[in-house]
Amino acid sequence: MKVFCIEPISKKLEEELVSKINLKTKPLGALGRLEEIALQAGLVQNTLTPELKNPYVVVFAGDHGIVSEGVSSYPQEVTFQMVMNFLNGGAAINVFCSQNAIGIKVVDAGVNYNFPKGLNIIDSKMGMGTKSFLQGPAMSRTQAEECIERGAAIVHELFKNGCNVIGFGEMGIGNTSSASALMSLLCTLPVELCVGKGAGLDEEGVRNKVRIINESIDRNGRSDSPLQILADFGGFEIAQMCGAMLQAAENKMLILVDGFISTSGFLVAHRINPAILDYAIFCHESGEQGHAKMLKYLNVRPLVNLDMRLGEGTGAAIVYPLIKSAVNFLNGMASFQSAGVSHKKIVSANA
Amino acid sequence: MKVFCIEPISKKLEEELVSKINLKTKPLGALGRLEEIALQAGLVQNTLTPELKNPYVVVFAGDHGIVSEGVSSYPQEVTFQMVMNFLNGGAAINVFCSQNAIGIKVVDAGVNYNFPKGLNIIDSKMGMGTKSFLQGPAMSRTQAEECIERGAAIVHELFKNGCNVIGFGEMGIGNTSSASALMSLLCTLPVELCVGKGAGLDEEGVRNKVRIINESIDRNGRSDSPLQILADFGGFEIAQMCGAMLQAAENKMLILVDGFISTSGFLVAHRINPAILDYAIFCHESGEQGHAKMLKYLNVRPLVNLDMRLGEGTGAAIVYPLIKSAVNFLNGMASFQSAGVSHKKIVSANA
Repeated sequence: MKVFCIEPISKKLEEELVSKINLKTKPLGALGRLEEIALQAGLVQNTLTPELKNPYVVVFAGDHGIVSEGVSSYPQEVTFQMVMNFLNGGAAINVFCSQNAIGIKVVDAGVNYNFPKGLNIIDSKMGMGTKSFLQGPAMSRTQAEECIERGAAIVHELFKNGCNVIGFGEMGIGNTSSASALMSLLCTLPVELCVGKGAGLDEEGVRNKVRIINESIDRNGRSDSPLQILADFGGFEIAQMCGAMLQAAENKMLILVDGFISTSGFLVAHRINPAILDYAIFCHESGEQGHAKMLKYLNVRPLVNLDMRLGEGTGAAIVYPLIKSAVNFLNGMASFQSAGVSHKKIVSANA
Repeated sequence: MKVFCIEPISKKLEEELVSKINLKTKPLGALGRLEEIALQAGLVQNTLTPELKNPYVVVFAGDHGIVSEGVSSYPQEVTFQMVMNFLNGGAAINVFCSQNAIGIKVVDAGVNYNFPKGLNIIDSKMGMGTKSFLQGPAMSRTQAEECIERGAAIVHELFKNGCNVIGFGEMGIGNTSSASALMSLLCTLPVELCVGKGAGLDEEGVRNKVRIINESIDRNGRSDSPLQILADFGGFEIAQMCGAMLQAAENKMLILVDGFISTSGFLVAHRINPAILDYAIFCHESGEQGHAKMLKYLNVRPLVNLDMRLGEGTGAAIVYPLIKSAVNFLNGMASFQSAGVSHKKIVSANA
């Protein structure tokens, strides 16, 4: 498999960046999390004047054999129908990307549908969906490796065209089951803690989903290899997203991580190369119950929690303006000196 | 004083709005808090297709006599210096408003400085700052009433020019002391729970601030009248903001409430006319410690918590794109029917 050369970010400019942030016309630390993001952007780009260029959200779509076991409240055809919705501009991710001037690429990573020619979709089809992982591995190890390389190639193409900040979204009926299984193995947590309602299961549906994932893990075993875990339980869209994220880090791009499924892809990427963490911004905490625990496992704080659980990269897309605000204040605000504002604190005689 | 006629929002369209939201191509409720905001915007504007028009942030600036008691870590001159910074476009609020296409109006509500003529500032000066409320009321009741009318007039002018969504910010060295006193009286909470570090006090500074506010309350008493409380402990900028908010609600505009100081102005407005709550969006939870308790008192949830505590309306300005996302999904997303996406849930035979 392609080996990703991800450099840990250089801390060379840290002191200068912190000083630049602190000399802006505001009380020390008063921009809170935006200051963290500004620092991270500066370090990732190794500059005092980071820029966000040609932002993209790449939406990977794929189908899942596991849906035949009744783990989802929506029929599988919704995957291709939603892909058509993306291509027609009618989905939430279209609305938010258009609002925030973010480009979208839609990738057929393995949808169970033959799209007509001529659509604005990246053909990266690995098959008509994965196999049911209750019956054996979802895909072969070779397929998992190919997914990673294909995802990486898609990102590298955007990078060559000047993109330096990239969010990842997904669509795939059944993929919360896949993500829950990946999470359980990678975070070493019981399946019950990793399974949520997905797109809208009731309690009995959730119990069924837990049972099926537990049986699947009994069947496929608990590999230590992230690639094997990905092959055993992944989806084509999750595996391609994993490669895409690794490539983004190799290219020193800022990675906007979305919700539960995206973070499951990130967990695999992180196990393959932990240095990826420096490049990632965790945009939001999803309402899907396992997501908070994934974030805790990674020891990261999401920027916002708006009870969203839609996927598609929507969390990344709506939060992008906040990231832009972080970079903009760093570049655009006056310093105490340039604005002629008194910086020195009073030593209060009355205190 | 002007009586504000604030109509509770009509719930006439609630069912239709909820249905419109639910038929969008997404799992039920999957856009979380954005769905709440979309509903609120629709109800406030009494339409299924709300729009955000000519957004503004109005920044009220004023000085506070109480700073002579050593309650702030910055000298009073920072108020006018920061106003100049606003006018020169170098402050955080300028950067964020420019990014998000929000207009700014800067109001001299009572800064201790004679601004030269010809600046782009609204002259609404009530004096060279309030009196120290440790020595008596910060302003007269007549002044408080005049502040409310002036703030209202500023908003009404923007409304007449087509603005229907408005955020409020402030600048005033010492105004966390004023806000803490207002909070303590209006929320009936001990002063210690209402006082924080402001722009950067140390522990001794905080203790001093608590002591001074307690002594001030002993001196001025605990009125039941929101107007008297405002006169006793308010600032000219807080009092004008209070009137501005009431007028915005009377005009059925969406009110973007910022942080600790803004919410103190809102608390007064809310006591004057509780119907204002229907029109308010609480944009963020400030890092200033009392803010969370103010929000709890009002029984409202802020949209984000980014540990910001800068004021100026910055929390409102950075969160505005999220509000826009809410309105945009309502207007721009396809429905299950229009997109040809299967809506019906499977009744799982396997479950």
